[in-house]
Amino acid sequence: MAGPAPVQRASFPRLRFVGAFRELYLLAEADDELYVVDQHAAHERVLYEELSRRYREEPPVELEHPELLNLSLGEELAYQERAEQLEAAGLVLEPFGPGRYRIRSVPAFLTAHPALVAEVVKGTLAGHSFAEAWRTVLARLACLPAIKAGHPMAEAPAQALLDALARCEMPWTCPHGRPTALVMSELELARRFGRRGVRAVERVNGKR
Amino acid sequence: MAGPAPVQRASFPRLRFVGAFRELYLLAEADDELYVVDQHAAHERVLYEELSRRYREEPPVELEHPELLNLSLGEELAYQERAEQLEAAGLVLEPFGPGRYRIRSVPAFLTAHPALVAEVVKGTLAGHSFAEAWRTVLARLACLPAIKAGHPMAEAPAQALLDALARCEMPWTCPHGRPTALVMSELELARRFGRRGVRAVERVNGKR
Repeated sequence: MAGPAPVQRASFPRLRFVGAFRELYLLAEADDELYVVDQHAAHERVLYEELSRRYREEPPVELEHPELLNLSLGEELAYQERAEQLEAAGLVLEPFGPGRYRIRSVPAFLTAHPALVAEVVKGTLAGHSFAEAWRTVLARLACLPAIKAGHPMAEAPAQALLDALARCEMPWTCPHGRPTALVMSELELARRFGRRGVRAVERVNGKR
Repeated sequence: MAGPAPVQRASFPRLRFVGAFRELYLLAEADDELYVVDQHAAHERVLYEELSRRYREEPPVELEHPELLNLSLGEELAYQERAEQLEAAGLVLEPFGPGRYRIRSVPAFLTAHPALVAEVVKGTLAGHSFAEAWRTVLARLACLPAIKAGHPMAEAPAQALLDALARCEMPWTCPHGRPTALVMSELELARRFGRRGVRAVERVNGKR
């Protein structure tokens, strides 16, 4: 019997927060559907799109004190392949001796995380392609500060997170591709309860 | 994929109300399980057991002004079969001309509903047996005042209803046999979200 299921739709509704389960799942209502939202996955999605937006809109920043970085042979080879893409992303390195590089500039959003710069650069040199590596880097940067399971959310911040998720370009999945929300209709609940569920049926038909 | 499902267990946990969906379903938490409770079905169960308790504990009440009642031939036949059971239930009739009866006494809980006395008596003469007819009568008396769908419940009364349901002898079904609650474990939710769900797994294993 189908229960609350992951879905992919063109639009994501404005959800009304009604309560939380296990300090992880936000329970919300939209018309005649019950939403179960993973607060961590949802926050990851919101932060990921925020980083992507800043990355597109904000010019890279020259580092006042260029950071030195040691690259492995594999990383050097990847860098030679991806130098232009790194530069387009705002990551400018310059050789500084064998296997050593100076990080000259970084995307603006990274200036808030100086401790992560080296990790980010190495991250962009991993994986099968720059695009894949870059998505992984952004996803990791979004995951670190995202609200974790076991962190209780008050009504106001919970509603704010649901509103921010609804504004996302891809609200249905987190940056790692996992669902952010499960949905169950009132009609499905009515069936499970053995209710005639007329009210739900009317609404559902009314929408079709 | 199994979702929140009707269950029948020996015990019913103390539920913590977390929110309401569609002014009908109470969302509640107990350990690592999410409960969806049908507020009308739950209230019916609570009222039904309250009526049953009063029926067992309170002596029947003599009517100051015995009510006259016309019975159909079928109802008269049923009465002749069930007179002793009706009397044991506190319903005492006496013949008052052809097809007419006087209602002398009724179960104490009925004195609050004088307008329903005649309907209740006729109800006890319907169905295949007195026991079945009596259950139907009590279920109807419990249904009438039960909170309906579309009636918003504040947190305090919602929690009080969940507590009263947990104190019932048969909390898992309403008097008509429909489920009062659906249950879904955190582990099931974790699976649907593609989470490792370790926290849930540990808790579940910890209980076994």
